[in-house]
Amino acid sequence: MRTLLRMRTLSDVGEFGLIARIERLARNQHAPQLVLGIGDDAAVLRPRAGEDLVVSTDSLVEDVHFRWRTQSPATVGRRGLLVNLSDLAAMGARPLGCTVAWAAPPQLELRRFDSLIRGLLATASEFACPLVGGNLSKARETSIAVTVFGAVKAGRALRRHVVRAGERIFVTGSLGGASLALARAERRGGRLRRLPIPRLRAGRALAALPRPGACIDISDGFGADLEHLLEGSGLGAEIELQKVPRPRGFTAACASLGLDPDRLCLTGGEDYELLFTLGSDAGCRLSEVALSRRLRLPVSEVGRICRRPGVRGLPLKRGWRHY
Amino acid sequence: MRTLLRMRTLSDVGEFGLIARIERLARNQHAPQLVLGIGDDAAVLRPRAGEDLVVSTDSLVEDVHFRWRTQSPATVGRRGLLVNLSDLAAMGARPLGCTVAWAAPPQLELRRFDSLIRGLLATASEFACPLVGGNLSKARETSIAVTVFGAVKAGRALRRHVVRAGERIFVTGSLGGASLALARAERRGGRLRRLPIPRLRAGRALAALPRPGACIDISDGFGADLEHLLEGSGLGAEIELQKVPRPRGFTAACASLGLDPDRLCLTGGEDYELLFTLGSDAGCRLSEVALSRRLRLPVSEVGRICRRPGVRGLPLKRGWRHY
Repeated sequence: MRTLLRMRTLSDVGEFGLIARIERLARNQHAPQLVLGIGDDAAVLRPRAGEDLVVSTDSLVEDVHFRWRTQSPATVGRRGLLVNLSDLAAMGARPLGCTVAWAAPPQLELRRFDSLIRGLLATASEFACPLVGGNLSKARETSIAVTVFGAVKAGRALRRHVVRAGERIFVTGSLGGASLALARAERRGGRLRRLPIPRLRAGRALAALPRPGACIDISDGFGADLEHLLEGSGLGAEIELQKVPRPRGFTAACASLGLDPDRLCLTGGEDYELLFTLGSDAGCRLSEVALSRRLRLPVSEVGRICRRPGVRGLPLKRGWRHY
Repeated sequence: MRTLLRMRTLSDVGEFGLIARIERLARNQHAPQLVLGIGDDAAVLRPRAGEDLVVSTDSLVEDVHFRWRTQSPATVGRRGLLVNLSDLAAMGARPLGCTVAWAAPPQLELRRFDSLIRGLLATASEFACPLVGGNLSKARETSIAVTVFGAVKAGRALRRHVVRAGERIFVTGSLGGASLALARAERRGGRLRRLPIPRLRAGRALAALPRPGACIDISDGFGADLEHLLEGSGLGAEIELQKVPRPRGFTAACASLGLDPDRLCLTGGEDYELLFTLGSDAGCRLSEVALSRRLRLPVSEVGRICRRPGVRGLPLKRGWRHY
């Protein structure tokens, strides 16, 4: 009777049972680059010749990056892959596939396991980025470490540390929406449904420009990620605060929650928009409107790279830090 | 005074300080396939044209796969990459690079962090498999999830699930040594120094044979991994127990510790030798001696794939399981 009354947990199914479950759920994945998926010692993908392989890893850890109370398991699974796809977007790469190293306590409910995997697979299918393998392990808390592989034309990957003085600075979409959604969910005790949208198409369009500048995805917050762009360059940036794009109704929504809109927009992070630069050479002299058309996304010019070190024009600049 | 007296921990340095540390330690990595390493949104590798990309992920979690009491941080770092390289070996692939998703409590001593990364980088350098990126996160226990990427001639990756009736079954090296070393370390309270040797050269030699059979690396134990090879085939195997290779002095060493040598050798796991099959076609009709020469490693013929399902000839067959 006992097994009928309680939820099934990971330890009821066992490691190989769980792997078989993932294999079953992942069986219907189709992608031209997929040669051999889950179930062997390793997976086999076949990118085209003349392409560079791009790889990125990002983890979500229980009580650090998510709480079961505020995020559904499917959202955690989706998010785990989405934030990695955003890194591929920031490199101008197209997705090839992903792996997941999953850790969880044996007492975790099986339906959470299933929902998380289903969420991850739904995103994998949406972006033609099949789950091709992974690893399961016991641990004290639940976590997923997702690694994605992408491909980009040889030598054409967008980079962070290539800013030059005089370049214009741009941002896709708007900033602050992710932090606002999180603050709302926390206040109301509801679940966070908002998910980042990896700007893959925009990233590839940028990489296809004749002379692209630097590019990074905004995960730590606009201020922190702008500093990452400048790192080691000895250069600085002048930002026009009022040009940093915010979602519609943002200021009013922040006011109703007693939040500082500037702070949320500049340090909140997790928006996963692209922050990039463009020179003033022929071919890069694109207006906001022309860029928005190429990237199929609103693009805002927010400032300029300058020789004087440091960032000016921002009231604050700290993002999200671990440890 | 307090900071002078106590060990520095991760929280003293902060996330970006830790990343800078890894970047500094990893700066001297050289490999022809490395285009862009640590420090951007993703890494860039360039395998040759006409090659398939092979990827694998494996985690080591504190108190599940290792204890600080019995393994040094450097050993944990080395091991984290070595077990992944063994998966590339089992596919017949050459290493291209790796990433690591690292999680640890803020109170972890910084010297452990450094030693672990140094250990991982030493192995990366030894096998020309540069660390090209990763992720750091807080967590309740320390863990590393390593993902490796390898390359193999298009369509030539060795697979698990391609056994055919009549094929001969082989094992490289010897089995049981890893379990014996662990048992010894546990009895004597010493640290485990023995590390697996990924059979990369042997795997590539196998993949170069005109008609290779199935291949798997022995991580769960001979019995369990043999079952993995047979999975879904409807076939079975006849094993000659006395032919399963053991290290020199193994029986006596087991006796002195009161351990059952058969059990250790067949279920111990963690030996990371290759278990593979070969047909009896021309080109595969190689003797143990000829194979050992090709693989530059002792090779033992231990049995045969047969039509009757199930494994015969083994006194027991359970390996290592999570959950």
